[in-house]
This record gives sequence, C-alpha cells and structure tokens, in this order.
Amino acid sequence: MNYKMVFGTVGTIMRIEALLMLVPLITALIYREAGTAVAFGITVAAAFIFSLLLSYLCRTKNQTIYAKDGFAIVSLAWIILSAVGALPFVISGDITSYADAFFETASGFTTTGASILRDVESMSYGCLMWRSFTHWVGGMGVLVFVMAFIPNLADRSIHIMRAEVPGPVVGKLVPRIRDTAKVLYIIYAAMTAVQVVLLLVGGNTLFDSIVHSLGTAGTGGFGIKGDSLAGYSAYTQWVTAIFMLMFGINFNLYYLILMRKAKSAVRSTDLWTYIGIGGVSIILITANLRGLYPTLSETVRHAVFQVASIITTTGYSTVDFNLWPGFSKAVLLILMFIGGCAGSTAGGLKISRVVILFKTIVREVKQTISPRSVSVINYEGKELEKRTVSAVAVYFALYIFCILAVFLVISFEPFDLETNFSVAVSCFNNIGPAFGAAGPMASYADYSAFSKVFLAFAMLFGRLEIFPMLIFFNPRTWASSQR
Amino acid sequence: MNYKMVFGTVGTIMRIEALLMLVPLITALIYREAGTAVAFGITVAAAFIFSLLLSYLCRTKNQTIYAKDGFAIVSLAWIILSAVGALPFVISGDITSYADAFFETASGFTTTGASILRDVESMSYGCLMWRSFTHWVGGMGVLVFVMAFIPNLADRSIHIMRAEVPGPVVGKLVPRIRDTAKVLYIIYAAMTAVQVVLLLVGGNTLFDSIVHSLGTAGTGGFGIKGDSLAGYSAYTQWVTAIFMLMFGINFNLYYLILMRKAKSAVRSTDLWTYIGIGGVSIILITANLRGLYPTLSETVRHAVFQVASIITTTGYSTVDFNLWPGFSKAVLLILMFIGGCAGSTAGGLKISRVVILFKTIVREVKQTISPRSVSVINYEGKELEKRTVSAVAVYFALYIFCILAVFLVISFEPFDLETNFSVAVSCFNNIGPAFGAAGPMASYADYSAFSKVFLAFAMLFGRLEIFPMLIFFNPRTWASSQR
Repeated sequence: MNYKMVFGTVGTIMRIEALLMLVPLITALIYREAGTAVAFGITVAAAFIFSLLLSYLCRTKNQTIYAKDGFAIVSLAWIILSAVGALPFVISGDITSYADAFFETASGFTTTGASILRDVESMSYGCLMWRSFTHWVGGMGVLVFVMAFIPNLADRSIHIMRAEVPGPVVGKLVPRIRDTAKVLYIIYAAMTAVQVVLLLVGGNTLFDSIVHSLGTAGTGGFGIKGDSLAGYSAYTQWVTAIFMLMFGINFNLYYLILMRKAKSAVRSTDLWTYIGIGGVSIILITANLRGLYPTLSETVRHAVFQVASIITTTGYSTVDFNLWPGFSKAVLLILMFIGGCAGSTAGGLKISRVVILFKTIVREVKQTISPRSVSVINYEGKELEKRTVSAVAVYFALYIFCILAVFLVISFEPFDLETNFSVAVSCFNNIGPAFGAAGPMASYADYSAFSKVFLAFAMLFGRLEIFPMLIFFNPRTWASSQR
Repeated sequence: MNYKMVFGTVGTIMRIEALLMLVPLITALIYREAGTAVAFGITVAAAFIFSLLLSYLCRTKNQTIYAKDGFAIVSLAWIILSAVGALPFVISGDITSYADAFFETASGFTTTGASILRDVESMSYGCLMWRSFTHWVGGMGVLVFVMAFIPNLADRSIHIMRAEVPGPVVGKLVPRIRDTAKVLYIIYAAMTAVQVVLLLVGGNTLFDSIVHSLGTAGTGGFGIKGDSLAGYSAYTQWVTAIFMLMFGINFNLYYLILMRKAKSAVRSTDLWTYIGIGGVSIILITANLRGLYPTLSETVRHAVFQVASIITTTGYSTVDFNLWPGFSKAVLLILMFIGGCAGSTAGGLKISRVVILFKTIVREVKQTISPRSVSVINYEGKELEKRTVSAVAVYFALYIFCILAVFLVISFEPFDLETNFSVAVSCFNNIGPAFGAAGPMASYADYSAFSKVFLAFAMLFGRLEIFPMLIFFNPRTWASSQR
C-alpha cells in the first residue's frame, strides 16, 4: 500500500470539498443567513488548512496506483467527504446530532436521498443547497471530477474510475481517462442546465429549479418540501420525471449522439431493456391504480413519476406510494433492485447486470439439456469475457448477501418487517424512500443513532458497488507494506 | 423426446401412488371412516386401471433416458402425483375445492407443509395419514423410490436422480444407482422408525407418533392440531427438534458412519457450517427473546425448535413465532433462504451452495486486488470444477429471480408486504408457515384459488430446484422429436 499516495490524494479531495462548499456559502450569503455562512466558512477554512498540511506531509514522487490503492483511495475519499461534509449542518445547528448529519451527508453524496429531517422546510437555504449539491457531485463521482480537473493526479488512474463508476464494464470514451472524465462532466452539466431552464420556464423559482435539477441529475432525491414534489405543478412533475429517466441512461449514449453515431446508440440492448422494464412497470401500476385518482392522465403521471423515480433510484415522489395497493408496491420494490443503466448516475444492480444474468441463466438451461453445447454470451454486440460473466453472477450473490445482512442488523429497530426490509433495499440501492414507517412522506428520524451510521455505510457500500469498501475494511489490505 | 418412455414411466408412478394410498386406506378402515375409505378406494382403483392402460399404450424397447427426458419425467411425475393425490380429499369431502386439495397435496409431496385448512382437527384420520405420508414419500424423492424398488426402469437413470435429489453435486454412494437409492431409503426408514418409538415412549398415541415422525423425516411440517406442536410435552418437542435437525443433514454422512468411516463424516464442511449457522441463530434468538417466556430453559427450547424447524424447512412450531420481535423474525427469514444440507430431505438454497457462494466471493475479492492470482475453490476436500462453481452462482440468481417473481404475482392478494413476501420465500423454499396473515398458527385459506394453484407450482419449482420445471414448461422441449 502506497500510504503517502493514498493520504496525499485524500488531502486533494478535502481541498476540492472545501471549494465545493463555496456554493452553499455563497447561497447563505445571498439569503443573508449569517449563522449558516459562518458554519460553511469555518468548515471551508479548516478543511483547506488540514488538506494543505496533509498534502505537504504526504508528498511523494511515487504516483503509481495499483488496484488496491485505487479501491482504498475511493473508499477513504467517500468516507472523508461525508464526514467533513456533515460539519456545517452541525455547526449551523440545522441538524443537532452528528450521527444524523453524517447520515444526511452520506445520503447526499451517495445520491440516496434518505433524510433524517422531520421538517425539511425549516432548514436554511445554504444547507438545502449543500444537500442537493452533494447529490450532483456524488452522482457522477467525486474522483472522476478530481481526475477531470486536477492535473497532479497520475493519468493512469483507470483503477479509480473502475472503483467509482458503477456497472460491470468500464469503457473509456476517448483514449485518455482525463478526457473521458471531462466529456462526461460536460454532458452532465449541460443536461442539468437545460433542466434548470425548463423548470424556470414552468414558473418555479430559481432556487427551486436549481436544487431540484441537482437532485434529479445525481438521481439523488433530496427535496425541499415535506411532501417532496407533490405540491408542484403537473408540468414540473413531468419535466422532472423525464429528466430522471434521462439521467438513468448510460452517458456513453449521449456521447455517441454528440459524435453523430446515434444509430449505434439506438441499437443498445441496455437502453431498450431499460425502456421495456420502465414501460411495463408503468402499464402494470397504471392498471393497478385505476380509480385511485380522479383522471386517467393524473394516474399515468403518478405512475410514470414514481416508476422513473424508483428505477433511476432518485427517490422524489408526487404521491405517498406507501398507500398504494400491494401489487404496485411489489413492482416498485423489484424496480429498487434493478436500478438504472450502468454508466449513468443511477444506483441499484444496474440493467446491464440483470440482462447478463438472464442470458447466463438461459445458457445454463441450454447446457443442462445438452451438456456439450458451448454458447458464448453476447452483450451490446460484443462477446463477453468468461471472467466478466462469472464476476456478474458473483457480484449478484454478494449484493443479495449484503442486503440481507443490512436487513438483519436493522431488524433490532422497533419497526415492522416491511419497513426494515424495504429500508435495507432502499439504502443499499441508493434510492431513499422505502415503505412503512420510512415511506416517501416520512423520514428516517426515528431510527437509532447506531442504525443511522450503519445505514450511511450501507449507502456507501452500495454506491461504490461493495468491493472497494470490502477491500478497504479488510485488515490485510493495510497490513502489508507491499502491494 | 422419448414420449413413450416418459408417459410409460408416468404410468408406473401412478401405479406406485395407488399402492402408497393403501396406507391411508387401511388407516381409514381401522378408524371405521367409511366415506374416507371409499374415497381412497375409488382413487386407488381408478389410478391403477389408468396406469395399466398408460403402461400398455406406451410400452417401448427404447429405455434410454437423456437429460431432457429425465427432467420431463420428474416434472410430470410430481405434477401427476399432486393432481391424483388430491382426489381423495375432494371425494371424501374433507376438502371441498379441488384447488385447495391440489395445494394441500403439492404442499405435502414437496414437504412444504403449508395448509389451506382452517380446522385441521376436524379432518378424518385417513386423510391426516395421507397428508403426512406424502411428506415422507416426497422427502426422499418419489423417483428415487421408484428406482430403488422397481426393476423395469433402466439403470442408467442418473439424470432422474440428478433432477430429483437436491443440491449442487449428486454423488453415488455405491456404484449402482439402484443400490444407492436403496441404501438411502433404508437409512431413512430406520431413522423414522426410531423417532416413532421415542415418541411412543414419551406417551404419545401411535397415530400421533407416526404422523409426526413422517412429517419430521420428510422435513414436511403438516401437523394434526391447530397449534402444531404447541400442545405437546417438552419431551416430544425436544425429540422432534433433534430429529428435524438430523433429517437436515446429508444422508451420505449416515452412510459413512454405517461404513465405519465416521472420521471422514465428521470432517464435513457442510456439517459444521450447518451446526454453526444453527447454533449462532439459536444464541441470537434466545438472547433476543429474553423475558418473553417464564424460564430460560423454555426460551432455549422454543429457540431450538423454531430454528430447527425453519433451517430444515420443516415448518412445525411450538409457539406463534409471528409474534416474536423483529430481529428474531429476521433471523428466521434468512434461515428460510439457507435451508438444510444437500442430500437431505430439507429444502431451501442448501448449505453447500451458501458455502460455495461465500468461497467464490472471497476468491473474487482476492482476484480484484491481484488480478493474476489464480485460486481454485475446494469443497469437502476436493477441488470443485469451474462448471460447478459457475452453475451454483447462476442457480442463485435464478433462485432469487423466481422468489421475486412469485412475490410479484401473489402481491395481487390483499395482504401486506410482510405476508406476501414471506409466503413467497416460505413456499418456494418448501417451509410452510410464513409471517403476517400466513403465520404458523394461521393458514393459507384466505388466498384466492388462482394463488393457491400458483403457489403449489412455486413449491414444485422449489422442490425440484427450478431447472426440471423450467425445461418441462419450455415449449421447445416438446417441439422436437429428437433429443
């Protein structure tokens, strides 16, 4: 383990976070929130000084990053980001307990959007902006951001990207990783800006438009009202639903469209599976909800919005879907497992893994009937390596084990099985709202401090797709001085 | 597809079932239940005549069984057994609807033990005996029984055994399959007889001792009282708990002990994992239940009994564990997934699959850190084939998909998520009782006829470990005349 390199990079990340906090600091100043501005000011100053110290102490010429270092850097970075990002909430007094603030910040960066706030509307503008901004930063990946815009990080950092960007296969769009990261962030920022404009056009205030666009782009889901987006116009709800779905699509497709290769973008299995699963879910839920809302168009809107919100693991809501009939809730629960496309900001298992698993099962059935049949698995027009296919199946097993483990631990809480199980699924897949006592119009406030910290780590495990955190928490990773 | 061979074997199986029904017929005669005796008499006669006709029409010299034929025979046999076995319940009037009777019989043969009876105590002795006897027959496998004692079936029927005997690897104990099947049945019958004697010694009636032993041996769980085993003595509960645990162990171990190879039996990973998981669960639940029962010894007894019942997928109960605190219920839910040892009569995922999955995950983590590390997976002292390892991971994915699919379909029922989800897990893993409205002291009576038939097929899918049924219901299996 290259300790100096690891901690030096952590220093860089703290400096980035200090810079990012200027956004809520300025927001607080605009809204003349003195206490909030001071809280962010103190945190920015402290993080900046500490990060300089860290970078000075850990300067090294050995900038090589091995797989293990990559995983350690990413894991440590995300924990530090959440731990430091929680400070302004506590200093400003908007959140009184540090466990709560840590939960809220981890929920932000991991784009989960689960909140411990009983009354979000009493929070300061600065803190509300920070919550939503963490979604935006966490959605595309903090380290990807660092790689894109900070030159001092070595360019052979595919290991970092692999650890942070979700999905079974990481592709480079352009030969140099830094350029890939830049392209991704430019597409991301442009789409966010378009959503802000469209929301403004619909009569929303600038603040509402920005925070909701940040939350949509990161597929996060932190709202600024107690009833999420229920109180907004149908236009706002439709725009948000469509943008949620767009941010759940693999960003490579947007890049292909920009490169005028729309044809090959449209041929994507991933895309059509995503559309197919979303479409079928909307039809099933609309049929199941008949009679619950005055008009068909309202029913369709709520079905589309909630499906978009859950499959992309965003977590906004326009109705309390916890009150929907059991079948619609079952559809949503299964969508929670599936998640969006790999290479998007969405969480969950990812569409591509589901497709690969299905293809593997079909092959297994064929081989059971005719043991000598050899069949390869094709995906997106390419033959998958055996290694990738087996890694997907193993990841799935690990993923289910983790969800059951999270469920087991939080079962100490005095909630029913429906609440605890859906909370485990929701947090691990970075969705946010669950069912029962943690439904979309409720909060996680009643969970114990222990469970909140535990669930925050569950979100981090889920966001980084388990392996980085598993390797980070393995003592053997840290024991040997060599790689 | 060798149609004649397939349907000819089905004829043989119906004849066997007619013979098996002599047991409840004699029971009905002993208890002077004329109506029940007539019901069984009619079914026996009809099944016998029909089976002779089938065997005559489908006689063929081509006795070769390919993998596909094996799966088709096993699937069809189990469906026919349940369909025919349901008739006496309806003819005698003990169960009024055929859907209910089919559910009850499939639940019996698959050793699930889920019941649609609101009042089991009003049922005739003949029918009660038949319910428990289906557990015993289904536990070790109907086809294995046929292979053991019917000479006309070809001896190269490893495909049938592979399709019916649960677990990732099917081993032959002795070179000839027929002899292996015989050895298994002899051990099985002897252990059942010992339990009957021990229950008699404890002051139980002969009838109670026999039906409870049959239900324990098959890890089935049909009781004859509304509150399962709650009303029986502590001695009876302890004997049943211990025998449940014994029937959840791989029968190969008993064979090794008989062959005086106890040392190699004791070295089994499977056995120690089973003991470990069971032991930890008992400790966790006992700690969680403190204060719920008057004495520690009573708490331990209930913890041991319920853990034994769920991990072996039997389903008897001594208390209404649906009223236990959430953590204990979470432990039980996770045990439902795990199940007993492969090569036992227990259902579930099986201990060996869980161990192999864990080892695969550990290997994957190691390979992520050092991509060039090559590590094989050893199990029970042998190196596992790559094919087996990947098959286990794929099976797990298919297994989880199936459970989620069952949950989705029965979510139309007006029960809460806790009930429907635990029912899907319970039926697919052949356990029986679930939580909520389908708890151990309740029944499946309130599910719709559609859901009952659907759940009966879910039990059959689970009992045969998915692939046989999947291949059976695939139209392509039946389309081609060649293999």
